[in-house]
Amino acid sequence: MDYQDLLDVVHQEVRPHIGKGRVADYIPALARVPAERFGLCLHLLDGREYGVGDVDEAFSIQSVSKVFALVLALGALGEQIWQRVGREPSGNPFNSLVQLEYEHGIPRNPFINAGALVITDWLLGLHADPSAELVAWLRRESASARVAIDAEVAASERAHGDRNAALAHFMKSCGNLQAPVERVLQTYFDHCAIRMSCRELARAGALLANHGRSPITGESWLTRSQAKQIAALMLTCGTYDAAGDFAFRVGLPGKSGVGGGILAVIPQRMSLCVWSPGLDPRGNSLAGVEALERFTTLSGISIF
Amino acid sequence: MDYQDLLDVVHQEVRPHIGKGRVADYIPALARVPAERFGLCLHLLDGREYGVGDVDEAFSIQSVSKVFALVLALGALGEQIWQRVGREPSGNPFNSLVQLEYEHGIPRNPFINAGALVITDWLLGLHADPSAELVAWLRRESASARVAIDAEVAASERAHGDRNAALAHFMKSCGNLQAPVERVLQTYFDHCAIRMSCRELARAGALLANHGRSPITGESWLTRSQAKQIAALMLTCGTYDAAGDFAFRVGLPGKSGVGGGILAVIPQRMSLCVWSPGLDPRGNSLAGVEALERFTTLSGISIF
Amino acid sequence: MDYQDLLDVVHQEVRPHIGKGRVADYIPALARVPAERFGLCLHLLDGREYGVGDVDEAFSIQSVSKVFALVLALGALGEQIWQRVGREPSGNPFNSLVQLEYEHGIPRNPFINAGALVITDWLLGLHADPSAELVAWLRRESASARVAIDAEVAASERAHGDRNAALAHFMKSCGNLQAPVERVLQTYFDHCAIRMSCRELARAGALLANHGRSPITGESWLTRSQAKQIAALMLTCGTYDAAGDFAFRVGLPGKSGVGGGILAVIPQRMSLCVWSPGLDPRGNSLAGVEALERFTTLSGISIF
Amino acid sequence: MDYQDLLDVVHQEVRPHIGKGRVADYIPALARVPAERFGLCLHLLDGREYGVGDVDEAFSIQSVSKVFALVLALGALGEQIWQRVGREPSGNPFNSLVQLEYEHGIPRNPFINAGALVITDWLLGLHADPSAELVAWLRRESASARVAIDAEVAASERAHGDRNAALAHFMKSCGNLQAPVERVLQTYFDHCAIRMSCRELARAGALLANHGRSPITGESWLTRSQAKQIAALMLTCGTYDAAGDFAFRVGLPGKSGVGGGILAVIPQRMSLCVWSPGLDPRGNSLAGVEALERFTTLSGISIF
Repeated sequence: MDYQDLLDVVHQEVRPHIGKGRVADYIPALARVPAERFGLCLHLLDGREYGVGDVDEAFSIQSVSKVFALVLALGALGEQIWQRVGREPSGNPFNSLVQLEYEHGIPRNPFINAGALVITDWLLGLHADPSAELVAWLRRESASARVAIDAEVAASERAHGDRNAALAHFMKSCGNLQAPVERVLQTYFDHCAIRMSCRELARAGALLANHGRSPITGESWLTRSQAKQIAALMLTCGTYDAAGDFAFRVGLPGKSGVGGGILAVIPQRMSLCVWSPGLDPRGNSLAGVEALERFTTLSGISIF
Repeated sequence: MDYQDLLDVVHQEVRPHIGKGRVADYIPALARVPAERFGLCLHLLDGREYGVGDVDEAFSIQSVSKVFALVLALGALGEQIWQRVGREPSGNPFNSLVQLEYEHGIPRNPFINAGALVITDWLLGLHADPSAELVAWLRRESASARVAIDAEVAASERAHGDRNAALAHFMKSCGNLQAPVERVLQTYFDHCAIRMSCRELARAGALLANHGRSPITGESWLTRSQAKQIAALMLTCGTYDAAGDFAFRVGLPGKSGVGGGILAVIPQRMSLCVWSPGLDPRGNSLAGVEALERFTTLSGISIF
Repeated sequence: MDYQDLLDVVHQEVRPHIGKGRVADYIPALARVPAERFGLCLHLLDGREYGVGDVDEAFSIQSVSKVFALVLALGALGEQIWQRVGREPSGNPFNSLVQLEYEHGIPRNPFINAGALVITDWLLGLHADPSAELVAWLRRESASARVAIDAEVAASERAHGDRNAALAHFMKSCGNLQAPVERVLQTYFDHCAIRMSCRELARAGALLANHGRSPITGESWLTRSQAKQIAALMLTCGTYDAAGDFAFRVGLPGKSGVGGGILAVIPQRMSLCVWSPGLDPRGNSLAGVEALERFTTLSGISIF
Repeated sequence: MDYQDLLDVVHQEVRPHIGKGRVADYIPALARVPAERFGLCLHLLDGREYGVGDVDEAFSIQSVSKVFALVLALGALGEQIWQRVGREPSGNPFNSLVQLEYEHGIPRNPFINAGALVITDWLLGLHADPSAELVAWLRRESASARVAIDAEVAASERAHGDRNAALAHFMKSCGNLQAPVERVLQTYFDHCAIRMSCRELARAGALLANHGRSPITGESWLTRSQAKQIAALMLTCGTYDAAGDFAFRVGLPGKSGVGGGILAVIPQRMSLCVWSPGLDPRGNSLAGVEALERFTTLSGISIF
């Protein structure tokens, strides 16, 4: 079966799940997204692309941005970043303060909110405007000029950002943020508010399947070892407090966002991105996880 | 033995402890206070006052202000305030976020920082400028025009206030603060930065020993039942995570601050205030607790 | 108003609450107790006794036994007992393992289950059969030969005692129990299964109001200071995770049990015991707390 | 480079780490194992085996037994086992009670102690003597008649087993154990006390790399999907609270034990087992993790 046929079957089988779950509604701009959207796009390392559904419709990438922020920080700064953020699953909700307090302000990993704030802080030491930097990088890596920050979403995140502000102030009080809290938060909210499509995300993530070298631009952003490390982190920590379940069902490194997107990689073969806004109780796209599970089952592809 | 003799004996006996412990140094303005200060003042309900040591030297009242903020809020608003803050000991450090997260943003009691922030928020619904209001009230109740906010300390608290900002933003995210976070924090820091002497604090606290009626101004700020409730809270929650030990050793309702002050009450007899800046490991004045313990032992006065 | 009239008024006013709440049903023997029972007995230090309702009906004293175990241990061993158990409110349910783990197996106080197990362990170092010892002591102190362990309740506690077994094994693993776990548990369950009436409990508790000297037998079991310490502990820790609320409403040192009994003391005046099996959501007798609150309000007696 | 050459290089490079770390000493029988032992064995799915060092010396497999217990339970009972144990990383020490209490007695995964106790309980519903059953299974699957329970270690585990007893009693109190606590514990300690060599473990684990079918006996113990699930669990939860770090450095599903053994699998290629008794601070074999990291780096084999 070729990939396009496979995607068509997956789309067909997953149809009853599309529109199920709850669209994120903690900010109005996200709550307005129609629940019945669905897209799934593969980007093979040889450049071929396959897609079904709304693969070119931009959506709010939210926490998927955490992967790209980590790529930029790890690529530029190397192993020193791990002095201020761990690499272990948290076993706790993504925005919990409990573990952060017990562990003295060192977040468990870069994919929970506290950890992403630390990564953002590292980027603020590197770039005058990390948001512009990240957008520019994503435009190049996805070969798409339309990648942009949704200003309405960013403003809305900020207006409803007290939980993240609590995390940031707590870490500041522990000495684990360098930049002013307000700048860290604003930059973090900007990153979350980036809009991209499944196709654009699959392209931008392809370097993670390719030992750190982008098959789009040919540039190497990470060492082979670093690329493997990020994939390992996606597997163990990429889908909130459901990473075990995701590894169990899907068996691929993945990073999800509450906008309904999930970026996954099949090392040395392809990156893929699915999007459907309805979320399961743990904050991952309900139809998206379902689609990835069917894709790995039908294709027989899995890292395990 | 009359009270003055008693105080002299206490002073003598406690002398080896004065200057021991660690002066609070989380903000520079507090760290500069000489460790060897000590004052102890009694205010009897009939108006007599007795004192030893530095009873008229003003110091930063810090968390002792939480008692007065509670008097104003409970007196004006009554029982409704308990919808947003509990009345139980926390069994946790005064600035912990852990319990606050498990208990959905409802602080355990008004004497931990989170609870005092909620009380401050209530006051912001009552007064345009609760800081000015509290200072004016304290001037009247202590019959002393010099009670004032130390602007340097308030600014310093704010500059080092990330832990409290974390608490406030967290509660805001739970819907348990009405006013803007910044205003709540500023007002809270103002209250902590008030400077008063032992004599002034003993006077201002006398209403708590007198069924809610101030023996200084003759005004009733609390019902008899409310005054008893605040005394009960002081006993169970007034000395951080050492309330049990304080009840055990001293046997009086008391409220301490990291400036080294402790306000205590002997119901229907007197209020008393001790001050010495060196703190024990749990944040209470080391010589202060010692002095109160000796006072109750020597006088035979205790609520138990 | 004399005490008998007062008790009659309290009884009248509390009537609508009797039978409300939930009778403890974690073991069958307790679940069978009729919910509508109510008794209240005062024992004044001069020997006078006043009672209303079922003051002479024996019930399962459950956690009220923790006070008497503490009296025996503190009286015999003195301050060394505090090396293995704290004196602070826990801010957690009475049978929680969480705090115990964070605090390395040292229970917060002797009135949560873990703390009572440590006290039991101390008693096992003193007596060959601490259960027989405690029963004999209670018979003398209550001037009642019928005080006894209810073997059916003790067996039932043991059969449903896995939560307490978890606490005991955990402390054993931390090195904070000396005797074999099974002996500690059996002795603890025996103590909980003692049956006494309101009158008997009020008598046995009278020494706590009398500086440690029993007004029944004339013997001194505690120093004045120790008696005050236990009263302080009852106030801050005696009613599970509702100690603040109890201090707030009743304003007396008290110790409750899930059998529906509450022993309270008014220092230098009297001890009193109330019993009604229906419990409020935090495990204290619903009508019992109500009755004590009315008694202190009507009599104007309070330690605050 | 062929596998034997590779193993020789790994052995050479890892030599400085052998003997480092701390040999488990919580029971005397383990503390006596010489620290400088080291073995590494590969079992390819075609039957070839390669080894260096002490590959045929038996050691206490400890928590590596948790994988085999899970194979037997999942293979026989299927998905129903997940009703009583989760599949998520815990983010906590392997023997913590905290999360277990917050999550009502449902352990996070089958590889922390509490989860393994639940799996043991499932096996007690299947077999009259699950210890004998497991040993017999391991003998067949490792083609080695000498696999056996070390009775001294099992007795020693039991004698020092209070922490596990606490976990078991707690789960019993939540209704999450069916068999008597004592039987569950004894069976669990028996499993931990099994002695096997690197070669025997690599053989017995080979089915996990082979879609559930044993290349030794030809029997299918798991469906393809179940084999992948166990590998996913090993990756996310197999090395205590260092699973993220292990995935990061080694990039293979692995399960470690405090005896110093680590079983790892490379799906569809081989299983491998390393042993060296010195442990790192998180309880994994220090030289063992080092050796696996070098093996994957030198061979270029990784699932990522």
